[in-house]
Amino acid sequence: MKNQRDKKPAPRPGGRSSRVKDAVFGAVETLMAENPAAIPSIGEVAARAGVNPTSLYRRWGDASVLATEVAIERLTTEFPMPDTGTLRGDLLGWATNAIRRSLKGKKNLALLRILATTVQGDDAARAGRLNAIMRRGQELQALLERAKARGEPTPYMSDVLEIVLAPIYLRALFFTPMDDAGDVTRLVDRLLAIAPKQPMEKKKPRK
Amino acid sequence: MKNQRDKKPAPRPGGRSSRVKDAVFGAVETLMAENPAAIPSIGEVAARAGVNPTSLYRRWGDASVLATEVAIERLTTEFPMPDTGTLRGDLLGWATNAIRRSLKGKKNLALLRILATTVQGDDAARAGRLNAIMRRGQELQALLERAKARGEPTPYMSDVLEIVLAPIYLRALFFTPMDDAGDVTRLVDRLLAIAPKQPMEKKKPRK
Repeated sequence: MKNQRDKKPAPRPGGRSSRVKDAVFGAVETLMAENPAAIPSIGEVAARAGVNPTSLYRRWGDASVLATEVAIERLTTEFPMPDTGTLRGDLLGWATNAIRRSLKGKKNLALLRILATTVQGDDAARAGRLNAIMRRGQELQALLERAKARGEPTPYMSDVLEIVLAPIYLRALFFTPMDDAGDVTRLVDRLLAIAPKQPMEKKKPRK
Repeated sequence: MKNQRDKKPAPRPGGRSSRVKDAVFGAVETLMAENPAAIPSIGEVAARAGVNPTSLYRRWGDASVLATEVAIERLTTEFPMPDTGTLRGDLLGWATNAIRRSLKGKKNLALLRILATTVQGDDAARAGRLNAIMRRGQELQALLERAKARGEPTPYMSDVLEIVLAPIYLRALFFTPMDDAGDVTRLVDRLLAIAPKQPMEKKKPRK
């Protein structure tokens, strides 16, 4: 049974655990490059990485959780959060990155597709995926906290996702990707128009 | 080569062409029910429907175009556009339908997934898919035209998609589907708040 996903991943001290992770993540990326349409199974990844599948099941539980962790790590590495000194500048940079990674490049679109296509798992797999995605969410939250600390009107993260990110992904997944700076500016300004003028007291509850 | 997608589908007079279409659409639905994770290939559909694959290539060109046409037809049949007499009522009904079809039910999520996962095709396939999706768009446009004819402030269709539909799909594809009436009301009212108070003169150009 693959039901140990509630366990936090072990810390990665750069030792054996870290070497296993590098081999496994590399295997996922190679397999996805060979066949971008499919999430590789735990068995395929284990064989390619030369690792016992049991330890993969124990650590990631599910192929979709593993693929999501790889995708989020790639996002974090290749599209770091901007830090321009103003909220508008940061949001424009972040939204432009979101469009870039939704553009036609096979690798980029595969990344978006991993995030979007693996939701069919059970509840534990969903929780594992959400956990990985939330790591990226925490980086976005930190971007918003910096704006708040500067005294800028700061939107709620849920509104950032709904008003800026959602239209970018809708266009990329269902139509053709947005590609011009005008769209980004329009979405970011629509968001900033409803940003609370006072600094946030606390995070808006969001279920 | 499968490059005749620019041709309009033949009219469907209820004759041979219509019988072929029924058999083909039925085969797509059966195959998707058997394996919701994959878009069935033209070859698989032809074999299941007992139809020559050549005629399928000629008419639909690409498996993703065919699957999209099936998905849009199912949308139109199972989630007809509401006509409540007010724009707000219509939009609330339409958005509630969008959430319903993104809920966990295998068939519903498969439908959303067809629409989202088949964009990897070439430009001609993209055009064919867009053409199918735009038929649904025309129904939404008609809903907006009715509101305009009643003299109500009427949003642009692009804003309806960005402000109401995009967040619903983002939640369904990346997180967990929205499920409460509160979300629908919040999104629809956010849209109506920016609806032009004067009747639209003409459709906003949108590339």
